[in-house]
Amino acid sequence: MTTTDLNMVNAYIPGRADVGPLTAAMIERRDALLGPAYRLMYEHPLHIVRGEGAWLIDPDGRRYLDVYNNVASLGHCHPAVTEAICAQARTLATNTRYLHDTILELAERLLATVPGTALAHLMLTCSGSEANDLAYRIAQVRTGGTGVIVTDTAYHGFTDAVSKFSPSLGASVDLGAHVRLVPAPRLYHAGGADLAERFTRDVEAAIADLRRHGIRPAALIVDSVFTSDGILPEPAGFLKGAVDAIQRAGGLFIADEVQPGFGRTGAHMWGFQRHGVTPDIVTLGKPMGNGQPVAGLLATTDALAEFGKNSRYFNTFAGNTVSCAAALAVLDTIEREGLVRHAAKVGKILRDGVADLASRHEAIGDVRGVGMFVGVELVSDRASRTPDREFTTRVVNRMRDNGVLLSACAMGHNVLKIRPPLILSADQAGMVIEVLDEALTAARSGHRNRH
Amino acid sequence: MTTTDLNMVNAYIPGRADVGPLTAAMIERRDALLGPAYRLMYEHPLHIVRGEGAWLIDPDGRRYLDVYNNVASLGHCHPAVTEAICAQARTLATNTRYLHDTILELAERLLATVPGTALAHLMLTCSGSEANDLAYRIAQVRTGGTGVIVTDTAYHGFTDAVSKFSPSLGASVDLGAHVRLVPAPRLYHAGGADLAERFTRDVEAAIADLRRHGIRPAALIVDSVFTSDGILPEPAGFLKGAVDAIQRAGGLFIADEVQPGFGRTGAHMWGFQRHGVTPDIVTLGKPMGNGQPVAGLLATTDALAEFGKNSRYFNTFAGNTVSCAAALAVLDTIEREGLVRHAAKVGKILRDGVADLASRHEAIGDVRGVGMFVGVELVSDRASRTPDREFTTRVVNRMRDNGVLLSACAMGHNVLKIRPPLILSADQAGMVIEVLDEALTAARSGHRNRH
Repeated sequence: MTTTDLNMVNAYIPGRADVGPLTAAMIERRDALLGPAYRLMYEHPLHIVRGEGAWLIDPDGRRYLDVYNNVASLGHCHPAVTEAICAQARTLATNTRYLHDTILELAERLLATVPGTALAHLMLTCSGSEANDLAYRIAQVRTGGTGVIVTDTAYHGFTDAVSKFSPSLGASVDLGAHVRLVPAPRLYHAGGADLAERFTRDVEAAIADLRRHGIRPAALIVDSVFTSDGILPEPAGFLKGAVDAIQRAGGLFIADEVQPGFGRTGAHMWGFQRHGVTPDIVTLGKPMGNGQPVAGLLATTDALAEFGKNSRYFNTFAGNTVSCAAALAVLDTIEREGLVRHAAKVGKILRDGVADLASRHEAIGDVRGVGMFVGVELVSDRASRTPDREFTTRVVNRMRDNGVLLSACAMGHNVLKIRPPLILSADQAGMVIEVLDEALTAARSGHRNRH
Repeated sequence: MTTTDLNMVNAYIPGRADVGPLTAAMIERRDALLGPAYRLMYEHPLHIVRGEGAWLIDPDGRRYLDVYNNVASLGHCHPAVTEAICAQARTLATNTRYLHDTILELAERLLATVPGTALAHLMLTCSGSEANDLAYRIAQVRTGGTGVIVTDTAYHGFTDAVSKFSPSLGASVDLGAHVRLVPAPRLYHAGGADLAERFTRDVEAAIADLRRHGIRPAALIVDSVFTSDGILPEPAGFLKGAVDAIQRAGGLFIADEVQPGFGRTGAHMWGFQRHGVTPDIVTLGKPMGNGQPVAGLLATTDALAEFGKNSRYFNTFAGNTVSCAAALAVLDTIEREGLVRHAAKVGKILRDGVADLASRHEAIGDVRGVGMFVGVELVSDRASRTPDREFTTRVVNRMRDNGVLLSACAMGHNVLKIRPPLILSADQAGMVIEVLDEALTAARSGHRNRH
């Protein structure tokens, strides 16, 4: 077990458990072929061959309820998306240096989701990391600065520039000298303090510290549900002062919607809308193509003007007709199936179910979330609110063994991260609660045998 | 016409030509939606709705022979690839934190193409830019340095880090302080000098200059056909001394195979193999999925060891089952259809055809290339070898008007870049020559009326 393994929540750690000869052979082959930087999830890694709705299926036909992967937000292999991909892949798959309609229709549809903002343009990328990287380039050109402010356990991506402001990658990945961390807004640990006031003050202090070091602030970048910080959506509105502060300082506010976006919050299409703030740039990713590699950003005319003068932008695969067709099918499906309302409804069933378990399981320190996003903070002691990482890991692995896939997050690695596809049914939510109930009991006795 | 437009070869320049009301309206809508950083190609931009083999087709059913887009390297919408995409998209589209076979098979197949090297691992990304960005991160960790050496008109991608060593983006995109440019190896302009010796000396001088500024060299990165430098493949082998120099200095040699890779050189799968050099990292891109967003890198165990200890690597979309299935279908098709040999054969027909035109067209200063990659350097005067950018632009646009799509490259923007799909037929090569012949005549009289 190395420091790096310890740093990734819920990573498979070689040698820790007997995974059986078939899996062991496949892992060995994979390590040889893909090298030392890749990781697997779970004590007993999963071999998956098929996906269907909220289910992932292994070679023996065993079904796992996937309440973790928010890429397949409409459910795995949703036919509306796969058929859009097939039809377009058979017709045309080419780039943005020719005119085509699909990208324009996609831009119109996405921009229609942000009324009342100055967001006016769509730029497309292949991944959320590329989107945050491009947003950062744009912010540098717009502001003449390089300074970035993020929360202390944030994750924004893996490019050279973005990994420098993704502290959740761990201490062995250097932060940039131009990067400042602010404490994530942990309501559960705030001791009743005014979070909005505290977060604003912290961002203001970071701005001042950047300036004291001769670094002009370029951007405050946050995921408005603070996913890797531990899922911290409340109280809605607490971002306002911090956003005002960065914009007053000449920097941009970049809302990273890779996690909260596309209806997950159950109230709006975008997480920033819960906070009543107006971003200069909004970055989009994971659920955008329900599995097809497509991501991008929305930006104001003001943010983009200077960048457009200095730099042409061409991304060979991004904005290709197939990715645009997939993204359009996703927007259609969210609307047609009423998934935003559904996310609110079933998300509440999940949260109520966990809250109910809290009466019987002392380890549940806090239950929080918004829409189809639930965080369950597990503690060794409710009074001191002490994170219980080992217990959390046992719960995650026990649930995997019993057919429910989720993971954990937060600095203490002690917050269960429940992030199901938006189509999760009420019955499936019931199954999550049932399996969680059993796992909380089993984990108390240090149990992690396989069934 | 802005400096930036001038800087992009063959960009559409608003207001320069009457594009007709329908196209004008579509461009206006696009500019409003996508903002100021996107560019279109050609004086009269193309609206494309369908692709088939080497053809792109507009809404009126007019067919254009595409001898430019090397993404659709097997031909647009090749059924082997589209059907692999459809089948896999309907079955499972998920990520590398679960075990699956397709990625392992893909790694085995790709690594089998580099015998006699120490390249041992595959890592996957979504784009060539991400691949070069990741290669640079790996090189920094491996060497403890940041210094990068590239050629003077190189293009390696658009991320924040990679754009800093992509001088072809133009003077308004800053190079990094840790970046050194060396003159591209222009045989046609070398006056008979020993290019191998000169290129080696230039790289050695760049290494020394980095050190003199306290910057440790991390990598020499080159596209071994020097595409954006003007397509400079000869003489094969001239890279050897420069590669030795960077490796002796403790830096990595990164072969950017986004352009020459996947059989384009007509002799090997990879461009670096023509030079008899052994890269530490090879980056892959454009043709890898025949349109599906998939890219990656091959690396030695030595290059990756330290990075694997420090940094876990997860790229949500990269290595997903659908992209891997597409990439496998591409490898299968290259082999089954004998496309490497075919590229050599038809590429020679193209080069011979252009060489033949040179006897009648004084403007053709040089014809060069390798496999299915042809550069035609156009000059105002053969004795002085003076680049003729305006003439080149007229030829490109005249050919587009007559149904053949190509573009230009090089510092002087005066090298026709002919980069057809590998499946181009001998007859289609004949059409390219015929249309080029007419365009060279028409461009001489300053002609650029539409037909």
